[in-house]
Amino acid sequence: MLTPRRAATLALLLEATGDPKPGNVDRGHDHRDASLQQFAATATAVGPALAPAAEGTPLGAAIEDAAAATAHHGGGNTHFGAVLLLAPLVAAAGARERVDGDGSEGGDDGEGSGLRAAAERAVAGTTSEDAARFFAAVDRVDLALPPIDAVDDAALAGLDARDPATRDRVRDRGVTLADVMARSAPVDGVAREWTEGFPRTFRAADRLEHHHDGDGVERAVADAFLDLLAEEPDSFVAKRHGDGVAEEVRERAASIRDDGGRRAAVTALDEELLERGVNPGTTADLVAGGLFVALRRDGGFEV
Amino acid sequence: MLTPRRAATLALLLEATGDPKPGNVDRGHDHRDASLQQFAATATAVGPALAPAAEGTPLGAAIEDAAAATAHHGGGNTHFGAVLLLAPLVAAAGARERVDGDGSEGGDDGEGSGLRAAAERAVAGTTSEDAARFFAAVDRVDLALPPIDAVDDAALAGLDARDPATRDRVRDRGVTLADVMARSAPVDGVAREWTEGFPRTFRAADRLEHHHDGDGVERAVADAFLDLLAEEPDSFVAKRHGDGVAEEVRERAASIRDDGGRRAAVTALDEELLERGVNPGTTADLVAGGLFVALRRDGGFEV
Repeated sequence: MLTPRRAATLALLLEATGDPKPGNVDRGHDHRDASLQQFAATATAVGPALAPAAEGTPLGAAIEDAAAATAHHGGGNTHFGAVLLLAPLVAAAGARERVDGDGSEGGDDGEGSGLRAAAERAVAGTTSEDAARFFAAVDRVDLALPPIDAVDDAALAGLDARDPATRDRVRDRGVTLADVMARSAPVDGVAREWTEGFPRTFRAADRLEHHHDGDGVERAVADAFLDLLAEEPDSFVAKRHGDGVAEEVRERAASIRDDGGRRAAVTALDEELLERGVNPGTTADLVAGGLFVALRRDGGFEV
Repeated sequence: MLTPRRAATLALLLEATGDPKPGNVDRGHDHRDASLQQFAATATAVGPALAPAAEGTPLGAAIEDAAAATAHHGGGNTHFGAVLLLAPLVAAAGARERVDGDGSEGGDDGEGSGLRAAAERAVAGTTSEDAARFFAAVDRVDLALPPIDAVDDAALAGLDARDPATRDRVRDRGVTLADVMARSAPVDGVAREWTEGFPRTFRAADRLEHHHDGDGVERAVADAFLDLLAEEPDSFVAKRHGDGVAEEVRERAASIRDDGGRRAAVTALDEELLERGVNPGTTADLVAGGLFVALRRDGGFEV
């Protein structure tokens, strides 16, 4: 059983090297804003930065530290969605270890439900201090990024991540990080995971294990990515390119999947999306979260 | 400045993804015995396993722990040479941090000589307990590997890694790990680094920085790999295929390098060596060591 810290870093590495993943960084292509090597560098930063969450450190602090640790690299911002998703999962894995002694998932409680319930408890336990730290993390990442639309779009009136006074305001108003995510959920697939109990993250873990039975890890990641892309419009694509493009990408992915997921068809879609600058980043975040869950299951996912 | 732990993991990741590297795992090809993903998994194990060496834990214990941590994966054995090379470098980086407060390299003492001197002190400080742990590590890796020829070939009469009594014998005879490496140096390029003060490791760091000025990390790693392959016959190739093949590979690499290192020529050599099963593993280990040094230099190597 990998430590939560190591599982977080490895999940990000396995996600980045899964190939082909339409529109995303993969073994064959860099991301427009970050190379595979920059993804690797940030992955090695995220595990250690989130590790204190496994020991009970509040999620907001872990998220802010992870944002700070990844900001040294050009590709740092590219992991922010995955950091948000991994943080409660890392906290849950640590909490389970403290209860069970080993923290293994699966077994009697079925399909990792122990980890899932613990992740829901981690979300429910967030405070306004976590929210304040989250806004500080967004501001930090913002230095190298366009505004994080999930926050700008959310109905948290007057809470601008780039305004340091926002941190005091959320503390004064008692807005928790779970509250912030709930307001972002309609437009952000990672926030929705926080709010709905991580359904697609655990679904991703199941799909990864299913595909891994037949193929290697690289292909299993690509196949799980296609499954998730086919199931729901990617919220990052929707934010950047509109709901129409997000739905079009979903339909294309579903069509390829229903036709057997032929590699040539996936590669063609990959090249087209890269050309158009369409990057299904939320789907990549969900696969990274699913990899973390799969790596933490007993005998679930051998690299 | 990356921590020694993180620099060790990232060095292995950047080495593995450098492309094209004739005969080795790279972004384009898996290794015959291990996928890129398995290299990534072992890389995430090696950093944490070697980290105690940065705090003063004896090298033999760190090496044995790293061997144990990587043995869980199919690709575990593939990092053993790099582990041997990184262990004294990680110890040196930690020792420098304790002296200097920040551990940065380069600057007044030039070209990382402070780190280099500290690495030589780490080697000189090894004991027979370190040698015993090293033999235990070799035995552990041996479970999934042919015998490590460097040890079998060495004139340490009667010291067979697979015989547990060997550990007591080295303790009784007062054979240090530096002694073991000195006896392996004539046939093992990593052992030679231990014995000669890491000349090619620091040369690799210089070449990496030189090439990085013009290109990205992925290409700089490939170019530095070609430089080192062109300079000396790879000792891993020599052990597996004989001195003639090792020299032939060196000459081919030198010819390509002298002709400008054209990518098509490197790729052609890569495909031929993969076909022949010729894997210049020592050169890869030296590049990984060089990456660690470069990552620890102030402002030296931005990913």
